[in-house]
Amino acid sequence: MSDAKQPLSSLSAAQLRDYLAAQQRAYTVLQERGLALDLTRGKPSTAQLDLSDELLHLPVTVKDGDGVDCRNYGGLTGIRQIREMFADLLWVEPEQVVAGGNSSLTMMHDCLVQMLLHGAVDSARAWARDERVKFICPVPGYDRHFTMLASYGIEMIPVDMLADGPDADAIEALVATDAAIKGMWIVPTYANPSGSVISMEVASRLAAMPTAAPDFKIFWDNAYAFHHLTEQEAKGVDILSVCSGAGHPNRPIMFASTSKITYAGAGVAFLAASAENVAWYLRHQQFASIGPDKLNQLRHVQYFKTPQGVRDLMVKHREILAPKFAAVDAALTAELDGLEVATWSKPTGGYFVNLDVLDGTAGRVVALAKAAGIVLTPAGASFPGGHDPRDRNIRLAPSFPVLADVETAMAGVATCVALASAEKLAARHTAAASTPEGE
Amino acid sequence: MSDAKQPLSSLSAAQLRDYLAAQQRAYTVLQERGLALDLTRGKPSTAQLDLSDELLHLPVTVKDGDGVDCRNYGGLTGIRQIREMFADLLWVEPEQVVAGGNSSLTMMHDCLVQMLLHGAVDSARAWARDERVKFICPVPGYDRHFTMLASYGIEMIPVDMLADGPDADAIEALVATDAAIKGMWIVPTYANPSGSVISMEVASRLAAMPTAAPDFKIFWDNAYAFHHLTEQEAKGVDILSVCSGAGHPNRPIMFASTSKITYAGAGVAFLAASAENVAWYLRHQQFASIGPDKLNQLRHVQYFKTPQGVRDLMVKHREILAPKFAAVDAALTAELDGLEVATWSKPTGGYFVNLDVLDGTAGRVVALAKAAGIVLTPAGASFPGGHDPRDRNIRLAPSFPVLADVETAMAGVATCVALASAEKLAARHTAAASTPEGE
Repeated sequence: MSDAKQPLSSLSAAQLRDYLAAQQRAYTVLQERGLALDLTRGKPSTAQLDLSDELLHLPVTVKDGDGVDCRNYGGLTGIRQIREMFADLLWVEPEQVVAGGNSSLTMMHDCLVQMLLHGAVDSARAWARDERVKFICPVPGYDRHFTMLASYGIEMIPVDMLADGPDADAIEALVATDAAIKGMWIVPTYANPSGSVISMEVASRLAAMPTAAPDFKIFWDNAYAFHHLTEQEAKGVDILSVCSGAGHPNRPIMFASTSKITYAGAGVAFLAASAENVAWYLRHQQFASIGPDKLNQLRHVQYFKTPQGVRDLMVKHREILAPKFAAVDAALTAELDGLEVATWSKPTGGYFVNLDVLDGTAGRVVALAKAAGIVLTPAGASFPGGHDPRDRNIRLAPSFPVLADVETAMAGVATCVALASAEKLAARHTAAASTPEGE
Repeated sequence: MSDAKQPLSSLSAAQLRDYLAAQQRAYTVLQERGLALDLTRGKPSTAQLDLSDELLHLPVTVKDGDGVDCRNYGGLTGIRQIREMFADLLWVEPEQVVAGGNSSLTMMHDCLVQMLLHGAVDSARAWARDERVKFICPVPGYDRHFTMLASYGIEMIPVDMLADGPDADAIEALVATDAAIKGMWIVPTYANPSGSVISMEVASRLAAMPTAAPDFKIFWDNAYAFHHLTEQEAKGVDILSVCSGAGHPNRPIMFASTSKITYAGAGVAFLAASAENVAWYLRHQQFASIGPDKLNQLRHVQYFKTPQGVRDLMVKHREILAPKFAAVDAALTAELDGLEVATWSKPTGGYFVNLDVLDGTAGRVVALAKAAGIVLTPAGASFPGGHDPRDRNIRLAPSFPVLADVETAMAGVATCVALASAEKLAARHTAAASTPEGE
């Protein structure tokens, strides 16, 4: 208890000066180590990829369970067995699932493009014909969701991501009156980067809320549905049923993939939606594809064998990932606990730790880290346009480096946070001291 | 010589009646065989797919020549070695090549969509903002090219496909004055379905011709670049250099794939274009993809080893395919030679035989064949909107069935052609006979 640190803001000017000097010395030592570490992206590590080595020797046969030669053309929906397997895992029906190529981002993009050029299944016309199209973007969120919208000039309306999902009050109010709001992004389980898991209550409100746009869509990016970090596994909301029950069966389109189950670049992506949405997707996709890589789908079927095979594999991922997330927490706690200069998430799943530092210091922390050889995701990356209005949010991605490197990098990051915080508070003291009395 | 058949149109009414009756008997016999054969699509046969069995046991290592772990995210251009390999084969530079997923159709679609939503690299604005967008479509041509355009409401202007490529006179006249014509399709080598190979002269005219649209694009679908049926191998035109030399470096975008080299559904697709076009493509693609399946690219590199490995494999394909094309020619010749009711191509490469029958009988031939258990591509499929104004064109795809089935099916098709021709000519006789004299 005697070691408990004092809030940095409660230090006297002299104490703070000493603390700042100590952090500057620590940072110099850090720089002298000449590190080259990278915590930027949510990439599986080599050890995780190695778990699926067996895939390299599959498939052992080239015909799927229906006798289809997976080497040849065709089969826009993907092969039946992998649709059934992931329908089971995602709590949907096989007919609601399309198995695609190696990138769920591509399936999201395909949907968005077809909505722009043709309109959604329930649109009066192509979205591109409207003067303005807007999307609700929970923040902090996934940068690739935002850059995709930005590339098509779609306006982004940030809404806070809370512990139980996006701020439903704010969303309800926005969509009720603005017909230009055509959709929203959501990472429902172990959100990127907050780690939030949407509650059934919030999901139900999103499913049921009246929207001024009759063709409002929820892009439900279920990227981390099975990516638990503890034995307390979050059970994902069955959004297709919930929306259907609320009278809006065509509102959600779910996306998922095995990118963080087998191979990040060579997995299988999925789309799940109402029968009508699936038909809409396939109707447009038929002009854009000769069918997905069925051989890779078959390879995955033969590897997993059953849905339980996927769950078993995820336990092995957890065993590799959980110590890295513990290391992040330990490093931040050791350096920053009690200082009241930072808060961070303790996610129970997913790929990220969300670190919030003092307002106005996130960019400085990332710059300091970079100068010390620790590359972090650019500050603000989790906000539309890369702009965090409070400049306080940092996304930490500890999955890729080996554990020892995570420990080293995070100790360094903690030093950078401490230094940037001390700099900021010291500047306040200086500003206060230099203000002439009586003014 | 004594067996040489007489032109059907030169038969007397009685002779034609006999001929028709004989064909009807032959057709009845054909129907009674209860065949179930399919000549619809240009799909590789099982024997062809089996040539690449070795792929099923690759890759033996997961890192590419640059040390990149192909299992993980990234690398939007595709891996260096496969780009180098296909740059060599396609006579372009590696920097001009992007290696993608399993479908070149998808890369064509990606380009078209980005031109619609953003404009090409040299467009003043997005094509979708124009009231009308038109494409020149050589006919007969590839149905998927046309259905893709139709799905976006792009107007198609048919231009005849000649022996040395599309009718350059007609194209030059069209593009010179109509700024709404934004592009054209072309299968330059062993065209689908005519088998034509574009000449350097025609290609040079397409490269050099003034176009009213400053952003006119040639979608150069090099699907059959290496797909020779004889030892007289057509040498493809290096369209990127030709256009560059003509002052239009950004005019062509070339597409190719290993779909008919390794696996139709699990190969690797390629795009090749000017540096500026490649940068344009990647700039948009970055929002739509986490990168192609690099592991499948690496698998192909390890399988082919060198560009010569691709050429060697194509010889094995030829050995399987050439007898089937010979069987098509033999069956048509045996039944129809001298009758002057049909002409057909004798392609030296590619996947199709182009059969032209008497005007107004193509639909009837396809219907007769279908009723006898022989499925052909729908008549008119090789024309925009599926509409062949003369109803005479039939696309024969003999690659997929085994040789014996091609022989059986084509003998049946020849019977159907003979029958439909006799029906048509007999109807003329009847019509002429029933016309009262003096009117």
